[in-house]
Amino acid sequence: MTLRIIATGGTFDKHYNELNGTLAFADSHLPQAIAQSRMTVGATLEQLPLLDSLDMQDADRARVLASCRAAAEQAIVIVHGTDTMKETAAVLGAAALAQTVVLTGAMIPYEIANSDALFNLGFACAAAQTLPAGVYVAMNGRIFSWDNVQKNRAAGVFQAL
Amino acid sequence: MTLRIIATGGTFDKHYNELNGTLAFADSHLPQAIAQSRMTVGATLEQLPLLDSLDMQDADRARVLASCRAAAEQAIVIVHGTDTMKETAAVLGAAALAQTVVLTGAMIPYEIANSDALFNLGFACAAAQTLPAGVYVAMNGRIFSWDNVQKNRAAGVFQAL
Amino acid sequence: MTLRIIATGGTFDKHYNELNGTLAFADSHLPQAIAQSRMTVGATLEQLPLLDSLDMQDADRARVLASCRAAAEQAIVIVHGTDTMKETAAVLGAAALAQTVVLTGAMIPYEIANSDALFNLGFACAAAQTLPAGVYVAMNGRIFSWDNVQKNRAAGVFQAL
Amino acid sequence: MTLRIIATGGTFDKHYNELNGTLAFADSHLPQAIAQSRMTVGATLEQLPLLDSLDMQDADRARVLASCRAAAEQAIVIVHGTDTMKETAAVLGAAALAQTVVLTGAMIPYEIANSDALFNLGFACAAAQTLPAGVYVAMNGRIFSWDNVQKNRAAGVFQAL
Repeated sequence: MTLRIIATGGTFDKHYNELNGTLAFADSHLPQAIAQSRMTVGATLEQLPLLDSLDMQDADRARVLASCRAAAEQAIVIVHGTDTMKETAAVLGAAALAQTVVLTGAMIPYEIANSDALFNLGFACAAAQTLPAGVYVAMNGRIFSWDNVQKNRAAGVFQAL
Repeated sequence: MTLRIIATGGTFDKHYNELNGTLAFADSHLPQAIAQSRMTVGATLEQLPLLDSLDMQDADRARVLASCRAAAEQAIVIVHGTDTMKETAAVLGAAALAQTVVLTGAMIPYEIANSDALFNLGFACAAAQTLPAGVYVAMNGRIFSWDNVQKNRAAGVFQAL
Repeated sequence: MTLRIIATGGTFDKHYNELNGTLAFADSHLPQAIAQSRMTVGATLEQLPLLDSLDMQDADRARVLASCRAAAEQAIVIVHGTDTMKETAAVLGAAALAQTVVLTGAMIPYEIANSDALFNLGFACAAAQTLPAGVYVAMNGRIFSWDNVQKNRAAGVFQAL
Repeated sequence: MTLRIIATGGTFDKHYNELNGTLAFADSHLPQAIAQSRMTVGATLEQLPLLDSLDMQDADRARVLASCRAAAEQAIVIVHGTDTMKETAAVLGAAALAQTVVLTGAMIPYEIANSDALFNLGFACAAAQTLPAGVYVAMNGRIFSWDNVQKNRAAGVFQAL
């Protein structure tokens, strides 16, 4: 079993820019997070353009789908922004991929104290290896099918429809 | 789906004692780690005596088994020391439990920089929810059956027999 | 020797709001930072309204001055935003206080990885105890008199005029 | 004003060895700590053998003294173990150096959560720039003359005689 991990941006990868005081994208935190996980399973990181998921367009989702289709791995983890994770999951879900694809992300950036990023990455890496082929959202200890998930923005949690 | 998380000590829960400069056990880090995970699945933490797994005796493993037997949850995560994780897994595996029991731990304590503890906790929480009934070791991105795992101490990794 | 530490906000105290993804103010990090410092000198924390220093008005600076005038301590550390630290220092400098007042802050919030906040707090706490009466800016290893300092925003550093 | 920072080991620089579960010395954390401080004052790091201060012999203290004598900088910070910080300070104090030499360290290693290391480093860097020539111990917000300091091991604090 080997894993493909696809970085697409989102809160997980936001970085504090000390010159202007904003959170934006620089280098992905995934190489550091993967090193921290001490993963002993083969894992290939594929870095797509890092985007706030509110900025994701159809073409961006098509690119994620193309990466899944091109992947040799059976197990795929996609690190994605939470606000439109469900929309990307729907695009992938409709594509009837033969692989197990798990979207995850973070409520707090990897580099900020008390972040859930590393937990979610671990959670998604197990889900991708154990679930049957299909597309899932795995966040904060719960696994959802791509067609039965929504983000409750007021509460900051994912839940079933 | 709800989870039971059982703390038994191990590297995951080692704490730096600033008065004598040693790593030992104080309060478990699990309450903080669970809070950090922002778990939205119901999770009950059960804290057994925190032990270095090299100090675990038969009676200690019997207590872990008793906790599993008494648990109402189908999915159980046990946070355990790495050095004898395999021995406890064997005791649980021989008991033919009807639940999914996943042992995990850490190579670096939760409170030390670059720790794999939170990743492994997330990894185990997904494995416990997705795998069929049985006993497993889940560490650093790989899942092993209880009867086909060993710790390679020289390399600091778990591997199949 | 005892210290008064006055929290006024700034980057040091910015907090990530996971519900809307912004950096803003919640509880000050100073109680945690002071506990982390294991300070054995008596230190009193006074929390003023936490502000982005770009939002500071004359009335806000007058309030900081009033706190200094009312303080019984000879040594005062003010945690302040970096963008207008110099302006507040000028208000305090013109007041001819009999105390040693040291303004400090952070380029990266206390709760974000790789933050300079704790270093700067320690740096300012020593400067406040050792320098003669007057008003100073102490940031990132350098100490400036209040009337000979500016922030170079392009480089993200403080420097003499 | 430029600084010399001399690494000699101690709790500050202890590193967790994941293969055997002990705290020992590997690479010094000082390069990372100095980078984190974003120091804008010129600072030269000199790394001596990293030792637990309980293992320091006369020859080790003589080497620290030789480094101070050879230093071109007026301000010197020595990162040292806490248990015999006082003994090294006494050797340096008796040498009547023309510089300001400040010994500091940490109660909790730099790489462990809630460490005082970065605070103490900042504290010492200011003390070294502002105090008159002499030898001092600067820990956890208090500055001591070399001949009026002791570590209270039961309480884990430095105090005057």
